[in-house]
Amino acid sequence: MHEVWQGRIMRKDNMDMLFSPETVAVIGASGKRGKIGYAIMENFVRGKFRGKAYPVNPSSKSIMGRKSYPSVMDVPGKVDLAVIVVPAKIVPAVLKECVQKKVRAAVIVSSGFSEIGGEGRAREELCSRIISGSGMRVLGPNCIGVLDVKTGTDTLFLSMDRLGRPPLGGISFVSQSGAVGSTILDWLSSEGIGISKFIAYENGMDIDESDSIEYLDRDPETRVIALYIEGVRDGRKFINAARKCKTPILVLKGGKTEFGSKAAFSHTGRLAGSSRVYSGIFRQCGAIEVSSWQELFNTAKGLALQPRPKGRRLAIVTDGGGFGVLAADVAEREGLLLPEPTPQMKKVFRKSFPIYATLHNPIDITGDTNAERYKVAMEACLKSGRYDGVLAITLFQVPTLEENIVDVVAALSRKYKKPILCCAAGGEFTHKLSMKLEAKSIPVYQTPSEAVQVFSSMARK
Amino acid sequence: MHEVWQGRIMRKDNMDMLFSPETVAVIGASGKRGKIGYAIMENFVRGKFRGKAYPVNPSSKSIMGRKSYPSVMDVPGKVDLAVIVVPAKIVPAVLKECVQKKVRAAVIVSSGFSEIGGEGRAREELCSRIISGSGMRVLGPNCIGVLDVKTGTDTLFLSMDRLGRPPLGGISFVSQSGAVGSTILDWLSSEGIGISKFIAYENGMDIDESDSIEYLDRDPETRVIALYIEGVRDGRKFINAARKCKTPILVLKGGKTEFGSKAAFSHTGRLAGSSRVYSGIFRQCGAIEVSSWQELFNTAKGLALQPRPKGRRLAIVTDGGGFGVLAADVAEREGLLLPEPTPQMKKVFRKSFPIYATLHNPIDITGDTNAERYKVAMEACLKSGRYDGVLAITLFQVPTLEENIVDVVAALSRKYKKPILCCAAGGEFTHKLSMKLEAKSIPVYQTPSEAVQVFSSMARK
Repeated sequence: MHEVWQGRIMRKDNMDMLFSPETVAVIGASGKRGKIGYAIMENFVRGKFRGKAYPVNPSSKSIMGRKSYPSVMDVPGKVDLAVIVVPAKIVPAVLKECVQKKVRAAVIVSSGFSEIGGEGRAREELCSRIISGSGMRVLGPNCIGVLDVKTGTDTLFLSMDRLGRPPLGGISFVSQSGAVGSTILDWLSSEGIGISKFIAYENGMDIDESDSIEYLDRDPETRVIALYIEGVRDGRKFINAARKCKTPILVLKGGKTEFGSKAAFSHTGRLAGSSRVYSGIFRQCGAIEVSSWQELFNTAKGLALQPRPKGRRLAIVTDGGGFGVLAADVAEREGLLLPEPTPQMKKVFRKSFPIYATLHNPIDITGDTNAERYKVAMEACLKSGRYDGVLAITLFQVPTLEENIVDVVAALSRKYKKPILCCAAGGEFTHKLSMKLEAKSIPVYQTPSEAVQVFSSMARK
Repeated sequence: MHEVWQGRIMRKDNMDMLFSPETVAVIGASGKRGKIGYAIMENFVRGKFRGKAYPVNPSSKSIMGRKSYPSVMDVPGKVDLAVIVVPAKIVPAVLKECVQKKVRAAVIVSSGFSEIGGEGRAREELCSRIISGSGMRVLGPNCIGVLDVKTGTDTLFLSMDRLGRPPLGGISFVSQSGAVGSTILDWLSSEGIGISKFIAYENGMDIDESDSIEYLDRDPETRVIALYIEGVRDGRKFINAARKCKTPILVLKGGKTEFGSKAAFSHTGRLAGSSRVYSGIFRQCGAIEVSSWQELFNTAKGLALQPRPKGRRLAIVTDGGGFGVLAADVAEREGLLLPEPTPQMKKVFRKSFPIYATLHNPIDITGDTNAERYKVAMEACLKSGRYDGVLAITLFQVPTLEENIVDVVAALSRKYKKPILCCAAGGEFTHKLSMKLEAKSIPVYQTPSEAVQVFSSMARK
């Protein structure tokens, strides 16, 4: 009993070694540019990682100026994390050596396991038996692994000139698909939005979505856990983990249709299961389900940067009439409420706005607005108690709108603790001001439907 | 009878003057930066426009180094186009002078007409009476007007450093909302996608969506007409124009919900009408209805760059399993078909692809693909006769994928006349290669749902 207990504790601690290892062995490291074993080794050698990284490859003497070892057994001292990039057939043997070496965690990048069925499935079962009882935690196989922005632990074989790494921030990602996860990383990085930890577990032989949720809920940096899954193997474990989790969980389920489910089976060897059952489970355990890659990205950004609305009453302030109309359409479809401003508020607006401004909701301060009109309209809404949040459609193209609109919105966000989202569509100038807004923790969306959907998802209970 | 006929001909010719005027009078031009009358004057003075542009403003002697005239009556010679930016109250008087001067077309930028109800509505009716029978065509009021990329006629008061102007290309826009239209222009310009003509008619006192459709159908540059409307005043006229139109029409209807419809009424003074009636009309006259700003933009790009699919059978080739799953989900929801490759095709694939590649549809050539695998997979699909088009999910982050994937896809597109769309999500590197693909007429979308939706819309009959 005592031993099992110790084993469980150790297994939890060992998961830390995926993110904060002191020593890493890259088994299958390569000195040849273009190889996956090169890209991973390069991350540890030229990236932010400050621990020791050893290349393991019996056919090389040295890789990137470092001595290469024939086996992980030959690496001097302890090894916290093994990153395995050898052909599938050799993986079981390599894994045995890792167990012998008392490696604490491993990422199996290699493909050719349950996702190909038949012999692959048998191979994965063999690997599972090899690590059983060892306490070593394994991510994968068939995965791109982990990124920890703080420690620079980075097993993504997608080189930095093709895939940007985001700065430190409040989002953590758990993805059954390397592609879905890593493209979101890349996009976040180009927008300057920060993350804490990234976990792509793909086949999920040992560590799965539930372990990841449990682990990330204890991570002080993580403000929102964004999840992409195709199939959950252990439903009860997932429900327990998600229910206990205090951090908001966002989830995108791939393979919800017959076509998608077939594709998911080929992808990770998991049965994607009934779409309705999944949606029911997500609702039950308080996870917010989204329906596309874009929504996962957008909503994660919203939850990381702004507080959650306490209800579904939204005020929309816009300088473009058509954008207000489109936002109102989506608000109704999403079941949000757009209460009218009070007569009192309208009196204030009438004093500050031109005759052709619209004093309903959306409040249309029109295409000749300045930052002051936004301040008047938004502040009245924020302090009225009539709204749970404000969507400011700030089309920066209007010539009269000063660039300090960024500071005006940011100041309102600091003063009132209610969520503020912005919508701004356009090209370069818009991108520049949007980046400034996001640097001040105001999330910006290009289209009214995206912004309103995010508000709706954030308000879901 | 004969006179009426002549009047109609003249009215058609006069619409040309919105796009190809030789002389323009900017009535309400200003020398003060930040003013709308400044921005418009600046377009004609510093932009691509090669005709004559006269500032009209009784309180200035000269504007931007050009002599300013007290009234349009004082401008020497004929005036083809008047751009009116004076306060609403003065507009009727100005319009009378334009009629007297035999100005052929006018854009009324000023607000304060039917969109504010009451006196505004009366004022608009007065203006309507003033131009009646004159043959002069009027765009607006309450509008941002026109952009013709070829002639540089540009009444958008959104300065070029805030709103990019796209290059010459196959899309023309007709928008009841300046904001919806102009933000799309800005986005197109940042992606390097070209347009021919842009018309924002807002209140539509004279020229409306139907006139614009008729006009653009005769424009040799226009390959697709993209429409944003809130309410059509004359349904029969719209149906006639749309039915006769040989150019594909894309339409986004704002104000389809109760909230949105209320907002639309405040915006342009038009009743937005029943959503189902509109959708029925669009279907009847062969217009493709889309449901968001993003879809309008995306589908316009697809139709401008690629041929329309002849059916709904799509092949998906992907280097990211999860992206394939998400694309398959959307394909099923959109009612597309994903036929399996034939045994013959699979034999070819088995020779060229690794064991862990997936030979269904989506065809997953996995995260260690090169450009050659795309060529093999896509070409087999294109020449098989089993598919009406190909979606290539080209996640450029994979280290083994060479940059010449751009040329490979472009060559396939030239060789086979079937539509090819790409999907690539990510940051800077992805943006760079996406721009290269689009320069070769291959449209790229960031997310699988966007790409699949575009294919589905393009295939709608």
